[in-house]
Amino acid sequence: MKSFLTKILIALLLFPIAAFATDPLPSWNDGPAKQSIVNFVEKVTKPGSPDFVPVPERIATFDNDGTLWCEEPLPVQLFFLIDRVKALAPQHPEWTTTEPFASLLKGDAKGVAASGERGLMELIMSTHAGMTTVEFEKIVNDWIATARNPKTGKLFTEMTFQPMLELLAYLRANGFKTYIVSGGGVEFMRAWAERVYGIPPEQVVGSSIKTKFEIRDGKPVLVRLPELNFNDNNGGKAVGINEYIGRRPIAAFGNSTGDKEMLQYTQGGSGARFELLVLHDDAARETAYGPARGLPNVPLVHFTPELDEYAKQNGWIVVSTKNDWKRIYAFEK
Amino acid sequence: MKSFLTKILIALLLFPIAAFATDPLPSWNDGPAKQSIVNFVEKVTKPGSPDFVPVPERIATFDNDGTLWCEEPLPVQLFFLIDRVKALAPQHPEWTTTEPFASLLKGDAKGVAASGERGLMELIMSTHAGMTTVEFEKIVNDWIATARNPKTGKLFTEMTFQPMLELLAYLRANGFKTYIVSGGGVEFMRAWAERVYGIPPEQVVGSSIKTKFEIRDGKPVLVRLPELNFNDNNGGKAVGINEYIGRRPIAAFGNSTGDKEMLQYTQGGSGARFELLVLHDDAARETAYGPARGLPNVPLVHFTPELDEYAKQNGWIVVSTKNDWKRIYAFEK
Repeated sequence: MKSFLTKILIALLLFPIAAFATDPLPSWNDGPAKQSIVNFVEKVTKPGSPDFVPVPERIATFDNDGTLWCEEPLPVQLFFLIDRVKALAPQHPEWTTTEPFASLLKGDAKGVAASGERGLMELIMSTHAGMTTVEFEKIVNDWIATARNPKTGKLFTEMTFQPMLELLAYLRANGFKTYIVSGGGVEFMRAWAERVYGIPPEQVVGSSIKTKFEIRDGKPVLVRLPELNFNDNNGGKAVGINEYIGRRPIAAFGNSTGDKEMLQYTQGGSGARFELLVLHDDAARETAYGPARGLPNVPLVHFTPELDEYAKQNGWIVVSTKNDWKRIYAFEK
Repeated sequence: MKSFLTKILIALLLFPIAAFATDPLPSWNDGPAKQSIVNFVEKVTKPGSPDFVPVPERIATFDNDGTLWCEEPLPVQLFFLIDRVKALAPQHPEWTTTEPFASLLKGDAKGVAASGERGLMELIMSTHAGMTTVEFEKIVNDWIATARNPKTGKLFTEMTFQPMLELLAYLRANGFKTYIVSGGGVEFMRAWAERVYGIPPEQVVGSSIKTKFEIRDGKPVLVRLPELNFNDNNGGKAVGINEYIGRRPIAAFGNSTGDKEMLQYTQGGSGARFELLVLHDDAARETAYGPARGLPNVPLVHFTPELDEYAKQNGWIVVSTKNDWKRIYAFEK
C-alpha cells in the first residue's frame, strides 16, 4: 500500500504542469484574441527568435477612453468639465445667458451640441485654463477622488477594464514600456494615471493647452493659457508618439476611428508588430456601441464599419468585449 | 618573524578603505563643486534621510550645447545647417542671390547675422523640413558619423565633456532618470543621444518643427513641415519639462542664460534640489567665454554677470572648467 506521501507526490506529478503556470491574462477568455497577444509577446521576447525585439524598443501605446476605462455615457473628462462649469458658475453670472454655458447649466445637451467645436473649446478653456499647473493638478485630484459614473455609481477610477489592466501588467513583465496616447488632456490624465494604471507621468501623451513660465510672488510657476497646444487625435496620435516618445511603438491598442492612424503608424514599422481594437458589444455587462456590426451609434466615439473593414484587411485584432472578456471592470474582482 | 601572508594581511588592513572605493567622478578635481554633487546624491538616496527622494521622482535634466558637449566655435547644429545648405545648393540656384543663403554660401558670417532671426528660421526650415522623419534621421546619422570640429579636428561626438559623462553615469547608477532639455532640435539630438550619452530618445526634450501624418505610397509617414512647433529655450525649458516629462526635476544642469528658467523651475519644487551651471573659463584646454568674470563674449551663448550673480544669490553651483575639471573631453581618456 502506498504511503499517503507517495500518493500526494504521484498526484502532483500527474497534475498538468500548465495548471501551475499562472495565466497572465485570467480575465480574457481563451480564443484568437488572447492567443494572438500571447503569441506576439512570446515571439518578440524570445532570444534568438527572428522576431526578437530588444527591451528598449518594446514600446506599447494605449488609447485611454474606451480602451483602458469606460467612456460611456460620456468620456470622463466631459463629466469633469461639466462639474467645473457648475463649480465656477457663481463667479460667472454672465454664463446664465451666454452659450454654451447657459445650456450646459440647464442640462440641455442639445443646446451645448449646437455650439459645435467652437463651443466645446470655450468650455474647455474656461475650465482648464487660468490657473497654474500645480493648482490644476489639485483640482483634478480632488475631483477624481469622489467623481462617480452616473450609471453604475462607481468611482470612474474603478471602471477601468480588468482585461486591459492585466494586459498592461503582462507587457510590462515582459520588458515593455507602456504609454497612454489619448485625445484626453495630458495633465488631466497624469494626475491619476500612475495610481490607476501604473503608468508614470512621463509615459502619458495627450492633448494639451499652452502654458507659460512666470515668477509669481517670487515662485516659478507654469500658468495654463486658454490656447490649444496639441490635439492628440487621429493623425495627431502618430505625431504625438514621434514628438513625445521619439520611437515607433511595436504594439498599439485603441477602440475608435481616432486611433486608426496610431495603429497604422505602428504597423508601418519593420519587424513584428501588433495592433488591437476593442469593440464594445456587451450591452448587458457594459454597453454596446459602434456603429459597426449593427451596434448603435453614440456621440463623440465611433467604431465605424470602415474601421472594422480596415482592421480585417490589415490583420488588426478586434476584441469583442462580450466574447473575449471574462470580466469587464476592475471593480468586479 | 611574521609570515609573508601575515604581512600582506596587515598591509591590506592598514591600506585606507577609501582607496578601494571607486571614485564615480574621476575627472572632477576635489573641491566644492564635486563635493556638492556627491553630498546631494547621497542625501536624496539614503533611506530614512529627511531628504530622501523615491526613485521615480529622481529626475535630472541637462542642457546639451556647452553643458554636455562643446559649443564652440559654434553650436554643432549650426555646422549641420551650413553643411545642409551647401549640399542642397545645387538644387536651389536661386540661393546664390537670395539672403541669407547667398551670404552663407560665401562664408560671410556677418551677412548671415544681418538677416536676423527671420533669416535663421529660413535657414532652419529650408534644411530641416520637407522630408519624412525617417529620412531626416538618416541625414543626421550620415552627417554626424563624419562631421568634425574645425578647431580640434575631432568628431563632434568625441567632444563630449568627460566630467559630465561621469556625472550622467553616476546619477543613473543612483536611480536617476537623466534627460536632455536643450534648445537644439529634438530629432537632431535623438539620432545620436543614446549612443553618445546613453540617453534614449524618449528622454530627449528639444525644440521642434511641426510634423504631419500622411500615407505615402501606401506607407504611413510623418512629414516635417516648415513651421516652428516648440522653442525649448528660456521659459520654454520649464514649459517643455512639464509638457514632455510631466514631473519637476530635482536636479538641473546648464551653462547659459537660456537655462536659467529650467534651474529656477527645478529649485521651485519642495524638498532637496540641485542646480549647477558650467562656466567655461579654460582657454588653454577648451575655450573661455562669458561675458561674466571678464571672459570674452561670443555670439549666441551667454554666461552673463547677471546669471553669475543670480547663481550666487540662489546657491547654484558654478563649475569652473579650469579648476573643477581634471579632464575636459571624452577623447582625452
